[in-house]
Amino acid sequence: MTRSDPKSVIQNNEAAINPHNQSNERRNFLRGGVKAASLVAVASASPMVQAQESVQKDFPAWSITPGKGFSEYGQPSTFEFNTKRTIAKAYGDLAPGTGSTRTPIEKLEGIITPSGLHFERSHNGSPAIIPKEYVLTIHGLVKQALNFSIENLLRYPLKTRTYFIECAGNSAQNILAPQPVQATAGSLHGLISCSDWTGIPLSILLEEAGLDSKAKWVLAEGADAAAMSRSVPLEKILDDAMIALYQNGERLRPEQGYPARLLLPGWEGNMNVKWLRGLKVTSTPTHTKDETSKYTDPMSNGMARQFTFEMGVKSIITNPSATMKLPIPGLYQISGIAWSGAGRILRVEISSDGGKNWFNATLDGESQPHSLVRFRAPWNWKGSPAFLQSRATDEKGHVQPTRAVYKANNSVDGRYHNNTIVTWAVETDGSVKNAYL
Amino acid sequence: MTRSDPKSVIQNNEAAINPHNQSNERRNFLRGGVKAASLVAVASASPMVQAQESVQKDFPAWSITPGKGFSEYGQPSTFEFNTKRTIAKAYGDLAPGTGSTRTPIEKLEGIITPSGLHFERSHNGSPAIIPKEYVLTIHGLVKQALNFSIENLLRYPLKTRTYFIECAGNSAQNILAPQPVQATAGSLHGLISCSDWTGIPLSILLEEAGLDSKAKWVLAEGADAAAMSRSVPLEKILDDAMIALYQNGERLRPEQGYPARLLLPGWEGNMNVKWLRGLKVTSTPTHTKDETSKYTDPMSNGMARQFTFEMGVKSIITNPSATMKLPIPGLYQISGIAWSGAGRILRVEISSDGGKNWFNATLDGESQPHSLVRFRAPWNWKGSPAFLQSRATDEKGHVQPTRAVYKANNSVDGRYHNNTIVTWAVETDGSVKNAYL
Repeated sequence: MTRSDPKSVIQNNEAAINPHNQSNERRNFLRGGVKAASLVAVASASPMVQAQESVQKDFPAWSITPGKGFSEYGQPSTFEFNTKRTIAKAYGDLAPGTGSTRTPIEKLEGIITPSGLHFERSHNGSPAIIPKEYVLTIHGLVKQALNFSIENLLRYPLKTRTYFIECAGNSAQNILAPQPVQATAGSLHGLISCSDWTGIPLSILLEEAGLDSKAKWVLAEGADAAAMSRSVPLEKILDDAMIALYQNGERLRPEQGYPARLLLPGWEGNMNVKWLRGLKVTSTPTHTKDETSKYTDPMSNGMARQFTFEMGVKSIITNPSATMKLPIPGLYQISGIAWSGAGRILRVEISSDGGKNWFNATLDGESQPHSLVRFRAPWNWKGSPAFLQSRATDEKGHVQPTRAVYKANNSVDGRYHNNTIVTWAVETDGSVKNAYL
Repeated sequence: MTRSDPKSVIQNNEAAINPHNQSNERRNFLRGGVKAASLVAVASASPMVQAQESVQKDFPAWSITPGKGFSEYGQPSTFEFNTKRTIAKAYGDLAPGTGSTRTPIEKLEGIITPSGLHFERSHNGSPAIIPKEYVLTIHGLVKQALNFSIENLLRYPLKTRTYFIECAGNSAQNILAPQPVQATAGSLHGLISCSDWTGIPLSILLEEAGLDSKAKWVLAEGADAAAMSRSVPLEKILDDAMIALYQNGERLRPEQGYPARLLLPGWEGNMNVKWLRGLKVTSTPTHTKDETSKYTDPMSNGMARQFTFEMGVKSIITNPSATMKLPIPGLYQISGIAWSGAGRILRVEISSDGGKNWFNATLDGESQPHSLVRFRAPWNWKGSPAFLQSRATDEKGHVQPTRAVYKANNSVDGRYHNNTIVTWAVETDGSVKNAYL
């Protein structure tokens, strides 16, 4: 579509830009684009003539032949095949459903995770629950135990909220590995996703069952073959817990607990029990295998913290991030995600010198409690080595800690609840590396 | 899992509920559920023993065998195969890519439309654009015409917003058909969807090209084989228009304009030109085929309104809705979606008597400009005939009109911009029908 000599036009174009004029930062985006070679100016003498000729001569085949017809359920472009979850099986093919898949956070934008890319953590695969056979039982210390079919549940009052879910083991590798692993942000930190969840406030169902005066805890029981079960304080259940039936508008995905899961806003991932078959009201925690052999936090004094429910305040720069390469020096938009189990994100700060100096990023849209928020900041990379970091603060005043603080507070094999500041090192050739600072 | 006689427990359960006690409306949900048969109480003498026995004897096969392993990109449950778009080809297989698919709004919840279920409107199919060959040209009355590759565009500053898109022809059948067509809410009104869109504010790109003093309009040109093109006032382009690159977190879907589309918040669907190949700045509207032969509104005086850009204030009750059946009298949660091209939704009112009396629904979450908002309201159906309606008011004071008002303002073959109040008739057997009032 370009008739003129691109090079001469690029030179003219550059002449029009004053690189010392920092008051209009956006111009530098153009300048970067020009040097990246494919942003070229077209002949400007008579644009309408130029467009006319384009129509007659230069349209690619895909633009002048009838396109693809309609489908009942659409799929991503085949050109985006690389936007996929990273599979990490814990025991290889010995237990194909034990492990996790991670969300490719470095390829995503905004705050909603497409349901097909929501991270998975399963202890023995996704059960193929037949909805007509599904029953949710509320039992234990209640006045009357109750069973609910899916048809029943769907008649209850629903509400919709945007909530993140993060696995307690997210970012574990960045604590355990002696040297920083060079992998994508999603591979390292992708056990975090965020959806529009619709479900029934759990307080409604418990009120119907009627609580015994000794009721203090609720055991949430999964219908998967691992019977993943966790103890939840009754206070949380009556506060903001929901039985989630819909995810991003449609019914729950199989690997997210179809037909129903527990949703505990802001609390560690595996407590949001999937394929929920029972809620047993108890007077004490049940101390299941999933809260004793796993998901406790060993400390450096030999003791272990149990029941670390709330996920810490955290942020990750997703763009640029490890394994990417900045093509040339110039202005970039730093972009990332932040969240906190304690409520809203108040502020995200950015450092490009490994934490010596900080400046505020912009939160894109209003920060909602227990939801991801997208942050953005302009950054002018001058071509010298840089250490990019983000540091989130939540409305309760919690500030994202450094890796050194985590190490001091946990035993050498501690790995859960790693909400420490992530460092991306930008090298002089533009390569972005995972780094420990 | 139930050892006791369900019937006797149901009787006990019903005895505990005072149907005249309207102060606790939620109890009626339970009552409804019981009569619907599968909500049964389990034996309550010793719930813990009961649970123990369940573990040993009563677990279905899907709960005690290892589940399905992991996938790189997940799909909906096969049991939800009926949650799909309705395909409506304009000329059958003569032109398989000409027509639309409609979002099954009656099966969805919240406000985000899953990308696979976003409505489609294509005039000659979805072009298979090769991203490396894609070029967006800004030309016409600019100081310097510019070409942008996708790589270039992805380096520009992005922002994310939740916006609905509605086809100007949505709900046309409810105006044209002499008798109300009995079909799902999605088939009748499903040319409406809502996504988290991420893109570049278009003002940035136009500023780089530099505007000629005669610039007043922008022709947005599609790269599809129909070359779908629309004239847009420059004022809108510089206000809140964006080049959308991401939809619900991931890159645009093919049928939504991959790799880039125009996004004009609140304006009629086809102006949000998909597969955007050019933006030609002009001094006047171009009067393309897509804004003269189509998408004008013939009036009863023989003239036609052209350039009705903004979509009207509108709401639809999605549950219950046509083709559904209420199983029994009792309390239901009415749920639906509302939106306005003029900004935020201020209020949604509900009537169950065809518009004689109205009460306010609750907006679920904060109403955002040019986004869907979910509304909910409890409704106690007593078993007599009812006419359910919703009526939305936006922040500019626009109120959703009646069908009679539309008919008076348009010619007999007018069909676009039908934002009139929708009526669902509930018959004594619980059947829900589409009705004209």
